[in-house]
Amino acid sequence: MEPVLFYGVPHGCSFGSIVALEWLGQPYRLCRIDMLAKTESETFGGVSPLGETPALLLEDGRPLVESFAIMQNIVARGRDGRFAQGSAEFDRLNSVLAYLHTTFHSAFSPAWTAYKLAEDDPNREVLRALAREKAARSYAHLQDMMADREWLAGDTKTVADAYFIGIARWGEDLGLFDLSREYPGLHKHIRKLEADLGVIFAHAIEDETPATSSGGFLGHVTLAELERRVAA
Amino acid sequence: MEPVLFYGVPHGCSFGSIVALEWLGQPYRLCRIDMLAKTESETFGGVSPLGETPALLLEDGRPLVESFAIMQNIVARGRDGRFAQGSAEFDRLNSVLAYLHTTFHSAFSPAWTAYKLAEDDPNREVLRALAREKAARSYAHLQDMMADREWLAGDTKTVADAYFIGIARWGEDLGLFDLSREYPGLHKHIRKLEADLGVIFAHAIEDETPATSSGGFLGHVTLAELERRVAA
Ligand SMILES: N[C@@H](CCC(=O)N[C@@H](CS)C(=O)NCC(=O)O)C(=O)O
Ligand SMILES: N[C@@H](CCC(=O)N[C@@H](CS)C(=O)NCC(=O)O)C(=O)O
Repeated sequence: MEPVLFYGVPHGCSFGSIVALEWLGQPYRLCRIDMLAKTESETFGGVSPLGETPALLLEDGRPLVESFAIMQNIVARGRDGRFAQGSAEFDRLNSVLAYLHTTFHSAFSPAWTAYKLAEDDPNREVLRALAREKAARSYAHLQDMMADREWLAGDTKTVADAYFIGIARWGEDLGLFDLSREYPGLHKHIRKLEADLGVIFAHAIEDETPATSSGGFLGHVTLAELERRVAA
Repeated sequence: MEPVLFYGVPHGCSFGSIVALEWLGQPYRLCRIDMLAKTESETFGGVSPLGETPALLLEDGRPLVESFAIMQNIVARGRDGRFAQGSAEFDRLNSVLAYLHTTFHSAFSPAWTAYKLAEDDPNREVLRALAREKAARSYAHLQDMMADREWLAGDTKTVADAYFIGIARWGEDLGLFDLSREYPGLHKHIRKLEADLGVIFAHAIEDETPATSSGGFLGHVTLAELERRVAA
């Protein structure tokens, strides 16, 4: 069977993996995980021991967790010879992909912690302020980076842009930023990505509205349907 | 010239890059950056725009930032054909390397923020408690992972073990954990790594005590000596 991506909703950082799979253009399936429902599923636990998304179940039944590792796996499937191990292009892609997965992703972490606290918890504002400070530095850095290039890793669209668009929205989702006003240069890149067919598809998948794949999407599978495959 | 690693002291996460370079066994040099002194250096700024360590200056003058990207570059230099792009071994290495660079590294982030606050700042304890909670989950997960293997990525020592040993010490450096008592299973792996020649070397480099390389270390270079190379 084709690889199956387990993606989390809402606000998942798996969004980028869906976009990257669309762009790849090879057959894949999706399995939806409601992160708030915290479904106790042995099948999902067998794939993602920490219960985190994204996770990818590979053709041969191996589970692969961690967004960065999934992106590397997707890059390796690309057949056009770019981003070969040891090339300067691979270095550059890894550098921006790493920045996005470490500094950028974790900048929002205090605000996600705050999100789970009671409205009147005094620590809420401390944590939100910390997230705003960190994320502001990241948005500014990414805006500087985009000043001299078309896409985050250079002159072509890569998994870095896919991951970026899944995280960049958090600034507004969490009510911390008005990105078009505060980071107009970076917001141009966001707008360009929001108009991309793969990104439009990923939003439709998240929102459960009709989704048209321009890639190799073969449909959803349920955890029940995967039970045998994971156990095997 | 050989690649030059800019490593930060004290408590740097560049520690892992030093260990990984030692294990690789190919020629390299080091350049020491005192992160507390916040040296304004155009040369270093040209290599690492955010002033972060680790950073690697490559043979051809290209700068490479982000620990994860540096580790990938080091893996690609290995000549034994393991961890080739697209292999199951590469997936597994990336998965644990990603976990260490994202969830594990960032677990300590609130405690580093607290470290910079005044002793009597009431937010200090909030942040330390948050770090302890997150890091505890990570130590436990890593301990589970080590239950069925010799090294973090399987049966051989990899860059994942190198990076791990640079970060794992933070729990005690920050006064948050007593690792040998709280995570005895994982502490066994820490002890094994602390007895490794590459790790002993990296400690000596950090501490400025006599360091014996069992790899390709060719000595330190200063920022002044690198000025021309970075500008070129
Ligand atoms: N280090 C992981 C982190 C993934 C992550 O943060 N996933 C979030 C969704 S964006 C999640 O699963 N959170 C739910 C949980 O931790 O229970 C990666 O980079 O893939
Ligand atoms: N995302 C970077 C983070 C590196 C990082 O956190 N470096 C720390 C030292 S462990 C640093 O340079 N801190 C100083 C600063 O941010 O000014 C990576 O993974 O390499």
